[in-house]
Order: sequence, then C-alpha cells, then structure tokens
Amino acid sequence: MSSIIDTVSWLAPDGSVHFQWSEQAILTGGRLRIIDQRALPGQLRYLSINTVEDACEAIQTLAVRGAPAIGCAAALALAAAGGEIETGSTDAFFRHLHEYARRLNASRPTAVNLSWALDRCMRHLENLSELPVPALKKELLKEALAILDEDIKLCDRIGEYGSSLLHDGMGILTHCNAGALAAGGCGTALAPIYDAMRKGMRLKVYADETRPLLQGSRLTAWELQRAGADVTVLCDNMAAQLMCEGRIQAVIVGADRIAANGDTANKIGTYGAAVLAHYHGIPFYVAAPYSTFDLKLKSGSEIPIEQRDPREVTAFFGKQSAPEGVAVCNPAFDVTPHELIGAFITDRGILQPPFAETENRI
Amino acid sequence: MSSIIDTVSWLAPDGSVHFQWSEQAILTGGRLRIIDQRALPGQLRYLSINTVEDACEAIQTLAVRGAPAIGCAAALALAAAGGEIETGSTDAFFRHLHEYARRLNASRPTAVNLSWALDRCMRHLENLSELPVPALKKELLKEALAILDEDIKLCDRIGEYGSSLLHDGMGILTHCNAGALAAGGCGTALAPIYDAMRKGMRLKVYADETRPLLQGSRLTAWELQRAGADVTVLCDNMAAQLMCEGRIQAVIVGADRIAANGDTANKIGTYGAAVLAHYHGIPFYVAAPYSTFDLKLKSGSEIPIEQRDPREVTAFFGKQSAPEGVAVCNPAFDVTPHELIGAFITDRGILQPPFAETENRI
Repeated sequence: MSSIIDTVSWLAPDGSVHFQWSEQAILTGGRLRIIDQRALPGQLRYLSINTVEDACEAIQTLAVRGAPAIGCAAALALAAAGGEIETGSTDAFFRHLHEYARRLNASRPTAVNLSWALDRCMRHLENLSELPVPALKKELLKEALAILDEDIKLCDRIGEYGSSLLHDGMGILTHCNAGALAAGGCGTALAPIYDAMRKGMRLKVYADETRPLLQGSRLTAWELQRAGADVTVLCDNMAAQLMCEGRIQAVIVGADRIAANGDTANKIGTYGAAVLAHYHGIPFYVAAPYSTFDLKLKSGSEIPIEQRDPREVTAFFGKQSAPEGVAVCNPAFDVTPHELIGAFITDRGILQPPFAETENRI
Repeated sequence: MSSIIDTVSWLAPDGSVHFQWSEQAILTGGRLRIIDQRALPGQLRYLSINTVEDACEAIQTLAVRGAPAIGCAAALALAAAGGEIETGSTDAFFRHLHEYARRLNASRPTAVNLSWALDRCMRHLENLSELPVPALKKELLKEALAILDEDIKLCDRIGEYGSSLLHDGMGILTHCNAGALAAGGCGTALAPIYDAMRKGMRLKVYADETRPLLQGSRLTAWELQRAGADVTVLCDNMAAQLMCEGRIQAVIVGADRIAANGDTANKIGTYGAAVLAHYHGIPFYVAAPYSTFDLKLKSGSEIPIEQRDPREVTAFFGKQSAPEGVAVCNPAFDVTPHELIGAFITDRGILQPPFAETENRI
C-alpha cells in the first residue's frame, strides 16, 4: 500500500524530543514514518511503514516500542492500510480491516495499549457502519489521529501530576525507556522529569541500561541527554548499590499493562527494582495513561508475558556472549505486585488501587 | 624474563575443568601460561606471562580473574620473575622482589587474595633471608606452588562442606564466575555444585550473565556446560522473576574480600541478589577459602571498591551502546552486609560471623 500519513518524530532546537504529525502531508498522501529505535543511539534513522506486515515487523523487532507508542503506531498503520482497501462494499471493507487489526494485535502480547487502540478504532467505525467506504476511511484516520493527539495530552498531564512528587536535587532511577520514544507525547515515566526540568528543578536521573536490549542506555540516555538532563547510565545490577549509597530518592517506571488490583507488567527487571526500592525505603512509582489500565483483569497473574528470542541474551551486536547451545531465560516483562508500588502517576491524577471505572475514572 | 613455570588449565575427557601444573616443565624451564578468559566462550586461548608487566596487565584486563586465581597467578608470576633476577646479593634480590610484589599488588584493589598470596611468599622468604639467592629463588617457587596446591585442596573442601547444604532437584542461582576459572582448584561458589554432581544430585543452575563483563554467561555457563551441568543463563535483572516463580532454592556466590563481621565484597550485583533472596526467603551463601577473609577489617565499609573504565558499560564488543559522552557508573564490586548472608561455606566448615582467628580458625 502507499500510505497516507506522515508521522514524524521531531527534535526541538532546545534538544527536547517531541512527536508530531504534519497535517499537510496527511492530506496530500505522505507515508507513515517512525524513528527506527533499533539504530539508536548511533544513528537517527527513519523507517517507512508501507504495509500491515511492515508495521507488525516494526513492532515485533522493537523498531517502535513502548506501550503508548505501540498503540499510536498500530492505529496509524491500521488507518493507513485501511485507506488502501479497494472496495465499495462496507462488508468487504470491514472484513479486510478486521483481518488487519487481528494481525497487528498479534504482533506483541503484553502491552494492552496495542489492543486498546485497535479496538477503539474498530468500535468507532462499527458505530458508523451505515457510512459509505470513503467516509469510513476518513473516520478511521480521524480516530487514529485522535489517539495520537490524545496521547500527547495524556503525557503532559502525567508530567504535571508526577512532577508534584519530585523536588529539587532528587536522584531518580528509571528502568527501560518510558520517554518520548515510547509514547506519542513526551512519555510516561520521563514526563514528570521533563515537567520538573521545565519548572527549574535540578534532578539527577539514573538510567538502568535494561538488558537484554539496552533500552535504557540506548534510548533513555539518548533522549535525556538531548533534552539537557543530568543522566547517568548504570548496569541493572548496580541499582542496589546506588540505593544503598543514598543516591536514589525515587524510582519511576512506565507500564505495559496494569490490572484492576494495581499489579503492573513492565519491562523485565522492574519487579526486581521494586523489591530493591522497598528494601531501601525508596518510593516506587508507576506512570501510565488510562489506556494502559486493563480493568478486565483482576490481578497480574492474568497478564500474558512475552518470551523473546534467546539470542537477545546470548548474542550481542552479532557477537556470541554465551556458549553455543546453552539454555537461556528471556521473558520480556515481569509483573510487579501492587503492594510494592507507592502510587500510580496517571493522566487523571496520583491514584491508588484498586481501580474501578466509576470510582477512579480509569 | 623467560619464566620457569608451566601452568596449564586442563580439561578432562569427561568435560570437567581442572587446573594443574607440569612439574617437568617447571624443572626444565617452561613458561607461566594462563587461559585468556577474555576470549571465552568463543575461543580457548592461552596467554604467556613473561614479565611482571605481563602479569599486571593480565590481572587488570581480567585475562585472569577471580579472587583465588588472582592470588595463585600473582604468586606464580612473582616466583617466575624472581627466578630471573640476576644478582648474587640478597639485599638486591629482596629490593627487586619487593618492587615486583608492590607492582603486582597494585594491579587490582579489591580481592584480598592478591595481597595475601604475595605477602605469604615474601614472609616465607624473609624468614629464610640468610640463604643465598639461588636457594631463595627455589624457596619462592616452592611457596608459590604450595599456594596453588593448597588452593586446589581448599576448593575441594569448600565443595564437600557446601554440597551438604544442597539436595536433589534444587535450583541454584550464582552470580559472576566463582568456578574453576576463578581458582586454582575447582572454584568456590561452584565447588559445592561440582561436588553435588559427583554425588549424583541433579541440580538446575541459573547463571546471572553479570554485566558489564558477562563473566556469568561467558565463563560460568562455559565451564558448567563442559562439566555436563544443567545450566541456564539469564540477564541479571531476571533473577527476581525466577525467585518469584519458585525456581531458585539457594543462591551461592564467591567473594573477593570478607571483613571480620562477615560483610562481603564480591562482583557488582551480589548485594542486589542478596536483597532479592532475602525478600523471597531464599538462603544466600558465600563460598570462600580462608585466604579471602581479611580480619584486619572490622566491616565492609573499609573494603576498597575498584571503579573501572566506563567503556565497559557503554561499549559492547567495540560497539557503542550508549550515547557518546553520557555519564556512567561502573563499580566493579559491591559489599553485601553480613545480615543478608545465611552462611559462609569455607574450607573450614560452614561458618557464621563474627570471625576471629582463634574462635573460627579463619
């Protein structure tokens, strides 16, 4: 397909990272473009997403990753692919679209934002199923762009609520990347840090490198360095020592899926960081928009955990770092039980579980 | 210098790893040879140690590492270099030898076995300072070989005492490499595992990969795989998840220096693993020979911690994995407080702190 959306990741002159899309390009038939995060920090390279297959591969290989960003990218890819379906029949259009959504949704299992964004697009169209196909295509694009637009605003609100928990001089540990590269907006876990910086607070940010794929040292360090933050990279196994030395006053992480009781799936290593924070009496915060909450799930035990290729652990940049044929663990996520989480920094305020749609507006 | 010792690391036909030295080669003027651990697991390569500088470089660059192995290597290097001092004057001989010992001792700061082995050699000679130089050289070599010989026996005893804590079907987590590659004998933390295997126990060993230099995935996995052990490699940040899933029944690590109160310096990440074990109610054991105990130090706060090159964290096999110029933490060790350590597996039995030379025979 030739796609009709031009999504660009944009670096402001002050070094801060923003995502925006060009309305003109959308109207005149550009392409869906994403930063290829696999090439960072060495190279800032863009990837053209021309088909649903391209989008699935980009999500599976982590060219685009981060729960909110995956949701935005999937919705935009669905809209782009939907715009190319050549049929006048509403039934045939929906049949194709459902198949696209099914394939996109199967690309990764853990982050709920993926199915949330696709479901939202499909529900929107199903409510308008009397419309002719060209109008449905326009509505689909409108909804995908609304998801992206909304994500930008959600990130800003997470930043504002979250920065109220911070103060000048704090040391903050984060794990993986839950910043501008992981969202349509400025991020989730990093949003409070960006907001605090705008308010003049001086923070010292410690970025766990986050094995096996180093999203912390490759991506978090990259975007924080560009934004002028004071960022230090550490190996994941050094966090306990920094906590012991009194250099960490708060831990903030993102989330891939949050159950109704507050149990939170996030990048592997998050649970260990939460246990370490608990032992050292350091508050541990999860930052996420409402779209990451999956209230259908009672607890974290129901969250599917993706197991990834062992070679992510045993080979590094193509070089073998473990003996051939050795057994390997490589869960991509773990689940942090709610009792280890001090608070949830959301677009709707600083919340505590259990979450219910009515009570907490999640 | 042309050295007079031929130390070889030897793999038995059954795949088990042993260290031995060839007496014939020693007498006929071989060379000090060590496995170049930097090349593992890809390549089993030997390094010739021809000068004190070679030995210092091998220790600094971790071609040889592991507290007991560093002690053995330093003593052997001192004996080899001492044998080459061309003087008939005892005073001149001791002057040169002290300078060699000083340089070797400065090569790494944390593992006490290094200074322990060098001090032992020097004390032995000082008690014999009436002897002529050729006899002193022979005595020096004899003492260095005695250290190596003793280390082999210490490892065996650690194995026997330690395996009494294990039982069939256990899952055991270890961190870094404290096996045959880290000692003159079969290791410290891995000795109980080797002994248990000999006794027919089936164990499941989990090897933390141990960032930044991957001694776990490169070395522990390599030697355990060769010994026919059931070994699984994981990223350091996955250990908490395995503990939560009930797959780990004990943690065994080695040590670089143990203070009188039991506080233990070991590879960075050990302290975090101890906190995680504590939270999950899993026993955490430190395995070490008496030469790793430094009873002059009251507590771990007195142990010097080596800070290593940031590029060990930010570049991986020569490829940049973090943005240029970013700040980095890279402590090589941390200190685990004694209260997190269930027991010390030593060549003198299963011990508890505080340690005193008289009471515990350490």
